[in-house]
Order: sequence, then C-alpha cells, then structure tokens
Amino acid sequence: MTSLHPFDPITPGEIQLAVKILEAAFPGVALRYKKIDVNEPLKREVVPYIEAERLGKPLPAAPTRLLQVLFHRLDNGAFYKALLNAGTRSIVYAKQLPKEVQGPVDADELIEIEQLCLSHPAVQAEIAKLQLPPGVTVCNDPWIYGTDDPKETRRLFQCYMYVMTTDHPQNNHYSAPCKFSPVFDALTRELVRMDHLPGGVDAQATQTQPWKVVETIQYAHDLLTEPLRTDLKPYIVQQPEGASFNVQGNLVSWQKWKFRVGFSTREGLIIYNTTYDGCNVFYRLSVSEMTVPYGDPRAPYHRKQAFDVGDVGFGITANQLSLGCDCLGHIKYFDGYRCDSKGNPVQLKNVICLHEQDNGLQHKHTNYRTGAATVVRNRQLVVQMICTVSNYEYIFAFIFDQAANIELEVRATGILSTVPFDNEKFGSTVPWGTNVGPGVMAAFHQHLFSFRIDPALDGFKNTVYYEDSVPMPEDENNPYLVGYTTEQTVLGTSGTANTSVERHRVFKIRNDACINPITYKPVAYKLQTSPSQMLLASNRSFGYKRAEFATKPIWVTKYQDDELYAAGEFTNQSKQSEGVEKWVKRNDVVENEDLVLWHTFGLTHNPRVEDFPVMPVERVSVTLKPDGFFTKNPALDVPASSQSFNRSTLHPEPAACCAPAKVKL
Amino acid sequence: MTSLHPFDPITPGEIQLAVKILEAAFPGVALRYKKIDVNEPLKREVVPYIEAERLGKPLPAAPTRLLQVLFHRLDNGAFYKALLNAGTRSIVYAKQLPKEVQGPVDADELIEIEQLCLSHPAVQAEIAKLQLPPGVTVCNDPWIYGTDDPKETRRLFQCYMYVMTTDHPQNNHYSAPCKFSPVFDALTRELVRMDHLPGGVDAQATQTQPWKVVETIQYAHDLLTEPLRTDLKPYIVQQPEGASFNVQGNLVSWQKWKFRVGFSTREGLIIYNTTYDGCNVFYRLSVSEMTVPYGDPRAPYHRKQAFDVGDVGFGITANQLSLGCDCLGHIKYFDGYRCDSKGNPVQLKNVICLHEQDNGLQHKHTNYRTGAATVVRNRQLVVQMICTVSNYEYIFAFIFDQAANIELEVRATGILSTVPFDNEKFGSTVPWGTNVGPGVMAAFHQHLFSFRIDPALDGFKNTVYYEDSVPMPEDENNPYLVGYTTEQTVLGTSGTANTSVERHRVFKIRNDACINPITYKPVAYKLQTSPSQMLLASNRSFGYKRAEFATKPIWVTKYQDDELYAAGEFTNQSKQSEGVEKWVKRNDVVENEDLVLWHTFGLTHNPRVEDFPVMPVERVSVTLKPDGFFTKNPALDVPASSQSFNRSTLHPEPAACCAPAKVKL
Repeated sequence: MTSLHPFDPITPGEIQLAVKILEAAFPGVALRYKKIDVNEPLKREVVPYIEAERLGKPLPAAPTRLLQVLFHRLDNGAFYKALLNAGTRSIVYAKQLPKEVQGPVDADELIEIEQLCLSHPAVQAEIAKLQLPPGVTVCNDPWIYGTDDPKETRRLFQCYMYVMTTDHPQNNHYSAPCKFSPVFDALTRELVRMDHLPGGVDAQATQTQPWKVVETIQYAHDLLTEPLRTDLKPYIVQQPEGASFNVQGNLVSWQKWKFRVGFSTREGLIIYNTTYDGCNVFYRLSVSEMTVPYGDPRAPYHRKQAFDVGDVGFGITANQLSLGCDCLGHIKYFDGYRCDSKGNPVQLKNVICLHEQDNGLQHKHTNYRTGAATVVRNRQLVVQMICTVSNYEYIFAFIFDQAANIELEVRATGILSTVPFDNEKFGSTVPWGTNVGPGVMAAFHQHLFSFRIDPALDGFKNTVYYEDSVPMPEDENNPYLVGYTTEQTVLGTSGTANTSVERHRVFKIRNDACINPITYKPVAYKLQTSPSQMLLASNRSFGYKRAEFATKPIWVTKYQDDELYAAGEFTNQSKQSEGVEKWVKRNDVVENEDLVLWHTFGLTHNPRVEDFPVMPVERVSVTLKPDGFFTKNPALDVPASSQSFNRSTLHPEPAACCAPAKVKL
Repeated sequence: MTSLHPFDPITPGEIQLAVKILEAAFPGVALRYKKIDVNEPLKREVVPYIEAERLGKPLPAAPTRLLQVLFHRLDNGAFYKALLNAGTRSIVYAKQLPKEVQGPVDADELIEIEQLCLSHPAVQAEIAKLQLPPGVTVCNDPWIYGTDDPKETRRLFQCYMYVMTTDHPQNNHYSAPCKFSPVFDALTRELVRMDHLPGGVDAQATQTQPWKVVETIQYAHDLLTEPLRTDLKPYIVQQPEGASFNVQGNLVSWQKWKFRVGFSTREGLIIYNTTYDGCNVFYRLSVSEMTVPYGDPRAPYHRKQAFDVGDVGFGITANQLSLGCDCLGHIKYFDGYRCDSKGNPVQLKNVICLHEQDNGLQHKHTNYRTGAATVVRNRQLVVQMICTVSNYEYIFAFIFDQAANIELEVRATGILSTVPFDNEKFGSTVPWGTNVGPGVMAAFHQHLFSFRIDPALDGFKNTVYYEDSVPMPEDENNPYLVGYTTEQTVLGTSGTANTSVERHRVFKIRNDACINPITYKPVAYKLQTSPSQMLLASNRSFGYKRAEFATKPIWVTKYQDDELYAAGEFTNQSKQSEGVEKWVKRNDVVENEDLVLWHTFGLTHNPRVEDFPVMPVERVSVTLKPDGFFTKNPALDVPASSQSFNRSTLHPEPAACCAPAKVKL
C-alpha cells in the first residue's frame, strides 16, 4: 500500500471506510449519502510536512487525514455533516444541521427528481394538453430552486420542461421549452405547485395549450440539415519524445514548476503547493464559487440563480474526457471519485487532463544592426477540467508557463438556458433577453466566478496591496508635464477593493521579509485581474444577499481552516451568504500574515443569437505574474526556437501563372 | 503580366516607375527618397470593383492606381510629397511641405545618423572620458526627437549611447547605458547639443566619468552564464494534407472567410475586403498608430514619445521571418517592398506570415442524461507581423476563427528602453521606474495603439452604438429586484465615447437596413474592447497635444479618403496631432453612413525586473464578434473533434509501485 499525500484526493477505500464508520455510529438507521470527500487538511499540520518535502528534510508525522460526509437520515429526514478521522477510523463529530440548511444536489438526486417529475400525474396531465404528435415527447431539467421566501425550509426543485422532437441522444430540447414548470419537494416527493410561465412580453403566465410545431434548432452533427465543412485539413500535434512533464501520483513537475493536482467533488480541480525552482509561490489555487443570476424579472425566473460550485459541484459535474477530443498532443488524465447515494464509490474517469501547448512566442528580439534574432517559443502546461452543469459547460484551465506565470482561463460554452416566448409575430422582443429561435428566448444573465488565491510567496506570511499609475503633480519636479508614478495602498486589515481601469490598478502580493536584490523592493507577484461588471441585482434582493462575494472584485481575508468557499458552505436555497462578506468583517490584520486573496470576475452575458444552439466559447482569464519575484526574465534559459526542433513546413508557391505582377517601364 | 488588384502592395516595378516619373519632373535635381508606396485607393472607385468581384459580375474599370512619394531635394533640402498616377504615368501633384513638417525616419537615415554620431569628434571625446578597457566599445540608438519647442523646425535626432562589453551580434547594450546623449541635425549633419543625462534620483545631469565595470545582463543564448533547460521535448505541428487555406496572390480564402493581405511601409499589415460566406463584413482593418510616451519627468527623457507607425512605420521595421522560429505548422509568407534613399526597390522578404493554429475548444456540450457529447475544436487562421522598433518588438496578429470572430492580438516583447542610474547603493530607487540591473533603470511608459476599423456590415453604410447593462428600476415590473436590461446609445454624429467596465459597455456596429429574421434587430458585430488606462500626460503637455487619439478609447468619424492615421499624416516632431481629434469636430452625421471606428487601447507598462533583459510577451487583444449578424452559431458545421483526426497520444501510466493508494478496511 502506498501512503497517501495530504493533498491526494479521496480514494475508493476511504469512501468505503467512511460508510463503515457511519454505519457503526447509526446502527439500524438507513442513511442517504450526499457527499463523501476528503476534508481540507489543517494548514498548520500540512505546512511543516510540505516544507520538509520541499527542503528534502525528514518528513514529520503526516497530517491528520480527515473525511467529510453529508448525509440524510432516511428515518426522519434529518441532514447531517460528519467529520471523520481516517487515521483513527473515528468520528470527530456528526452534527445535525438546522432544518433550513440544504445540502448540494447530488448526481443520483437529479435523476430521481427528473423521473419523479415525468411520472407525476399532474405533469402527465399538462403534457397531454400539449397534444404532441407521435414520436414527440417531453423531458425536464430539474433546477435548483433559488430563494424568494425567508421562511422556506423544504428541499425544492423547479423542473423546466421541454419538448423533444427527436429521439436522439443529442436532441436539443432547449430549443423547445414548455410553458409549465412543476415544483417538487425532494424529500416528501410531493408536487408543491404547478407554475405556469410567461409566454409573451410581460409577466402574464400562459396556460398550457396544444404545442405549435416549431423547428428544433439542433447542434449535434448528425441532426444538422446543412452539410459539414469539408475543407478543414488535419492538424496534428506530435510529441515524438513524449511530454516534458513528469507525474508521480498527483505530483506534477514541469519546467521548474512543481505542484499537486487536487480534486474534490465540490471544486473539482485544485492546485496545491506550487513551487517554482524550489521556491514557494502559492499554497492553494481554486475556483471557489460561481453564481449565475438571471436578469429576467418575471416569476419564476427570478429564482434562477445557480451556484454551480456550492449547489452542485464542479467535481461531480466534470466531464470524463476522451483522448483526442478535448486536447491535442500527449495527454495525461487524472481520475476522481465520488460516492453514490448508497455510499458506494463511483469512479470519475479522466476528469482532469494535463497536456502541453504551444502559445506562440514567449520573447523575441532582433538586433536591427546585425539582424541577429533571439526567438523563444511559449510552451505551456495546461491542467484542465470541463464541467457540464445541465445546459451549460465551463472549461477551466490552469496554465503554467516558462516565465513563471500562472493563468486561470475560463471558457463558457454549452447551451443557453432558454425560456418559451411567443416571438413568431415579427418584432416581438423583450428587453431582458434575445430571441434565439422560433418560440424561444434566452434571458440576460451573469457568470461571476470567485478565484481563491492562497499565496505563499517565499513563505506563508504575505501582504496584499494595490498600485495605481497616476500623473505627477504639475510642479517643478514635472516641468514638461509628462511624468507619472505609482501609488501603493496596502490592505492592512481584511476587506475589499475595487478594480480601476482608469488608474491602471494592479493588485500585488508581496513578502515584506524578502527584498529583491535588484529592485530593492519586496518580492512580489501581481494578479492581472479581469475587471468585470459586478452583480446587477439590487442589494435588497435575495440574489444579492446570497452572493455578496459577487458584489466586489477583490476580497482579502486572514486564512482560517474551513473558509474555502466565497458564498459559504451551503448555498442551495440559502437566504444569505455566509462567506467572504462575513469573514472580512473580523477586521483581521492581514499585513505580513497568512492571508487569502479572492478575486471575483466574470461575464455579463447578454446572449447573441450566435450563442445558440451551442455557444462558441466566451473566454475570460486572470493571470498571476511575477513582479520583482525574480532578478530577471525567468525564461531566459529556455532554448531558442529552431526549425530543427519545430519542423515546420513551407506553403508551396503557386505556379508561374501567378508570378508577381510587373509594371512595364 | 498579371494585372494588379487595387489592394495589392507596391511592386518593385512601381517603385522604379515612381522614380522615373519624378526624375523627369525634377531634371538635374538630386532627390533623396524617404518613401515610395501605394497610395490608398479611392474608396468610391474601389467599392464597385470589389462588389462586382464579390457578386461574380463583370468587373468595372480598375480603380486608379496611385503612388505616394515622400522625398527631399538635396539641392535645397525642401521636403515634398508627390502623388503619382501609375496608370497614366503622370504626376497628380508634387507639393513642397511646410518647413516644420518632418517626414518619418527611413531605414538608411537611421544607419547614417548612427555612423555620424559615432564618428563625431565631440562624441569621441566623451567616449574617451569613459576610459573603457580594451575590447569594450560604444554604440548608439538614434531616437526620434520628440517635441518640446513650438518653434523648432530642424530635423533632429537624439542619440542614446551604450557601452558594448562584448563584440557579439546580440550583445545587450541596453544593459549599459551611458550618461551622455548627443543631438544631431539630420539635414545639416551638425551636432546640435551634447545632452548629459541624470545619473541619480533627481534631474541633476551627470558629466561623463570613467566607466564603472558592471555586468551586462545578456539575453542571447550563447552569452548566458547559466545552462539552458534540457527537459523541453519537441512539440511538432504536423499538417500532412497541407493547410486549410488557399492563397492566390494576396487573396486569402479560409473557412468561409475571404480577405486580401495588404502591406504598406507605414502600417505594415492591412486586412482588406473581409467577407464571410460571401457577405461583406469589414472593408479595411489596420493598426493605424501607436504612441509610447515615457513617464520619466526629467530632461531629455520628456521627449521620449515614439509614434512607431507615423515616425518610422511597421512595414519597414517588420522582421523578415524564418521558417520554424516564429510559427509552427504549415506556413505561407508574404513579401513587401520599400525603396532605399536612392529610390531602389528593396525586397522585404517574409514580412507577413500566414498559418493555422489550434486554440482549444470552440464549443462543447454533453447531454448529461445520455453522456453524448458534441466537441468542436477552435481552428484559427493567423496573419502575423513582427516589428522591431530599435529596442522593442511588437507582434501583431489578426486571428480569424470559424465562429466568424476576428481578433487583433498585440504582443509586446523585446528590450526595455533603459537609462543610466547609479543604483549600486542599496535602496536607491526612483518613483517613475524600476531598477532592472546594476547601473540601469527602465522608466514607466505606456503603449497606446489605435485600431482602425472601417466596417462594411452587409453594406458600406453602418451605425455605431454602445449598449450598457443596467438594473431595471425597482418598480412593479421588477418585483424581485433582479431584473436587468440594456440601454443603447447611438453615436449619431462623429465623436468619442468612453469604455465602462461598471456598465459592461459594449460597442456595436450595425446595419439598420438589414434586420435579422430571428432577433428582429439590425444585423451587427460587436467590438470587444480592451478597456485601458488612457494617456497619463497632462493635457497641457506636448505629449498630449501630439497624441489626442490616445486620450479617448473610442472615436467615430465619417469616412474620408486620406484619413487613415489616428495622429495624422506627419507625427515626427509634430507640435500637435492632425488626426481623429480634428475629424470628429466636423460633427458629421455618422448614423447609417460610411463611417470609421477607431479604438485606442494598450498597456500602461511599469517595467518588472522580469521584463529584462528581454521581455516575456505582454498580450493585449480586442475582438470583433458577430452579434445578431447570423441566425445561429456559424461554427455549427465545423466537423467534430475526433481522435482519428487529431491523433493524440496517451501518457504512459507508471509502473505498479505507484498504483492507487488503498486504505485497509
């Protein structure tokens, strides 16, 4: 048996162990498991361990391996959180949570609700009213319910119904939304209410009428009516000597970088313990939360506000990737594990992939006198995860390069969440959405991500500050009126800050204890933010109260174990968030301290018709860049780009008939 | 002889023709040629021609082929601009320009000034004071002079001097700047003044002292003292069936796109007559200007404000690219031509390259019920030019994709412009720059680009507007306080606009005469701007008056022939710009008109020590995206990504000793 590293993801054996411990603790009680995962290890225990690893010293005792379990008692419906010690095989605690706390949706639950909905007589009755032609059926996407009632304690799902015009595994039902939407109690399995949806330009709900035959706008290749392009030639990435990375378990080494690939059902991909050339850089990087509020003001759409990390989890929605489809070249895959509702381990095969890519030039200079050029290409290492959250896809990639940059790239794709809209009458539009096909509209929405950065720049005590570029005063030191300098503002206590394009505001993380011998300033990395429009919902709305992290782009908190998620631990049907907005209020000193920097960024996504029936990627990215961390360009020692290495080919020149034109003199 | 297309770049024969015409017009007068290039064809003549081409109709008469020549008479130094008709082989006009107008720097002139400087006795005397050890020499970079005197009419160059510690074609002299800087008159060849540079933290100039031996921070591989990385494995792009593009002359066809690659000595790469699937999209795209003002307030640095398009030209500074260094895969190169000072044609070999690249996923959706996935990769076509402007490099790429997007990507690399600084005493820093090595500092500066967009969305009369995302009023139409909509503002007359992150402001170009049958709105493209800090120099400075285009991110003008350059035709030593800021003042109607949209964006670049001795690319990009131009995702018909097409390889799994860890139950 190989021993586990503190940052290793959960193993099938640990899932089985957790079930065994809990069964012993709740004899005779049937349990429904929502989540069994590794609990984040305690930092104070991990740091001495990883520092010994980094410095090649004898390892101290391994940190306590903790497991976290969320489950329901099936006898009384009570919802529990348990913390288990895997080493001692014992329960640290198993606490019943308050009735208003809802756990995340789990994979089995989604399918159960879907089936419950379709088989319910009231739903069947509505479907009958559609008078569908033969071969046309109905399906549904259960949605998290959102929040509009402070007293609600039931576990609710809102099912959005769609017409399936074709019996095909990739039929695009989102092209044909129905106008009724049942709400179910997931625990009692009762129909709570049959909502009817607006069908026109106002909030007026529409009763179910016979379905008007409309064309389904399909995305799958074998359902397209137009022919496919035939003029795309193969483009093959060959790595005849294999990859430049090394992988041992979940430890990845590549081009002076070392880090550990973590995986949890909630966040999916986590990057632990990143070092560059043996120096500490970041302790932990992850996408800690995302909220997707919709701008359609009408009931029941006002409840459409997904928290895809907290409500569901990027780990359990991560795609099982396949060779040659999602990446090119030489690819390493990592698996993950989740439990099913009975506590059985379920393998999540190939949920993370690792590969290199070429991203053009890294640096170039030509001496114009001599014509001599230095050209270095930009090889990158990509750690990628693709998540399908019902209709939508997110592609998350941490991209490491040879100049010590780490980019978090997010690509949004997949299918818009659509609503029915009687737009066949020419000119019918709504101000909060876009007609994307006959009878179907896609509402404006936002995607706001929280990038959680736990830095360790040359040590675990760091300082966050921002730097603005400002004109010099128009005085005797600036006689020609062109001078400009920078202004630094240290975030001395936990709090928030805004981005500013006008002032070219740059956020930096530095280690005041470590002075760069060239710049004479503390070593630092900068966060190249993605300045984004923040949450548009009113500060009196539930949408705002549940997602305060999405109302400011920068948050700095003092590190505390268990403060991992920007909107708090439980987001499903939350009444208000219990995350960064609470933690910053402690007014902790965060200067030269163990701190966490949270960056909220994202997209205001007012759909284009071109985003339907499947959306070309919308890309947004933030980058962590050394800024006075090294003493010169860290990529200087990357070998030159050369034809003998790259083996490019020249486009054949055309025949003589197309020779360069000449003007007769 | 093949006939030329109106958008074809100048040919060697045309350069010779121009010289022949002018020699005949100025008999017995020796001329010094600064520029011989094609003059932009008249749009009213070109549009019927390219429309006939697009629609497959008989071609009308070819538009007049005009040539533009800038030259000096050597007998009296007078500076001329001539316009020639290549068809009739005649002079349209040859006008002497006012004495204060300076033409751009030309390639021969730069070398002449460099040599003039080094051989001048006063410069030799300063060099002698350095008391350089054997083998150590001095070189210089002639700089455009900038402006600080409204009465100046001489043609001036400021030479920055550097110590060359090694006789090597890639020695990094920028690491060892000297403290003297002679100024020359380029026409009289006289030394105008010997400037001495500040050496400390204030503006106090420093007389030349014996050179203190400092290490040169080198970038060239064979001058590095550290070993190169040895763990980077080959990464080869194979296109066994060749490229997916077709090239006939300068006409490029690729994946429903058609456009013509233009080239001028001033702008370098120009994209003409872009159509998608036979529809007009853009008439002309180019980087029309760039200004690089420096923030060091001290003389003579206040004059460091380059206009790399107008002062020099991206065409004449474009690198002659070589196979396998600057791009991977299957590559097509285009050549250009310039004249030398005697009027001889000079071939600029391989100054533009064309290749495909893979940019990850274009779209993906997995039906979570069935597991069936549609995956399409994002193949792109890159048209690229790399310019070396003395110390600095710019990589410009127009990137076309299969979803009808056009991205303009700019990467800044090369070597920082440095100044001497006695920073060996620990702690010595300046507030307007960064110590990048012993004795050397790099001042803060900005790079502000003007992207000139001449649209032709479904026709040549378009409208520009911007759209903000705004919360709905908190009234009965928004009972849950989550609603948001958009506000449109049409730019009805020529003028400017600001970007706004807070309001998620998006700029769009639409054709009001053409309504999208799905959205019921005019067909449109959006400009995904790069919101950037604008010019920091005071509005009372020359730096501001010469570069007003850099003070606002958005300008809209009515199209007029000859209005091509954001800061005007002549930028070298200009006293104020004669560009967009003048043209918008006409208050032309630009709604449903032939208009031009100019986007100023760029970088505030406060150097990092990691940017030295050669800078890892800093990337900035803007994108033109269809937004209601099509009726659905235009990339739907791109074939699926498959292993049989992509031929990826799997990373070998480790031996049994690293098998997944198990917990004993």
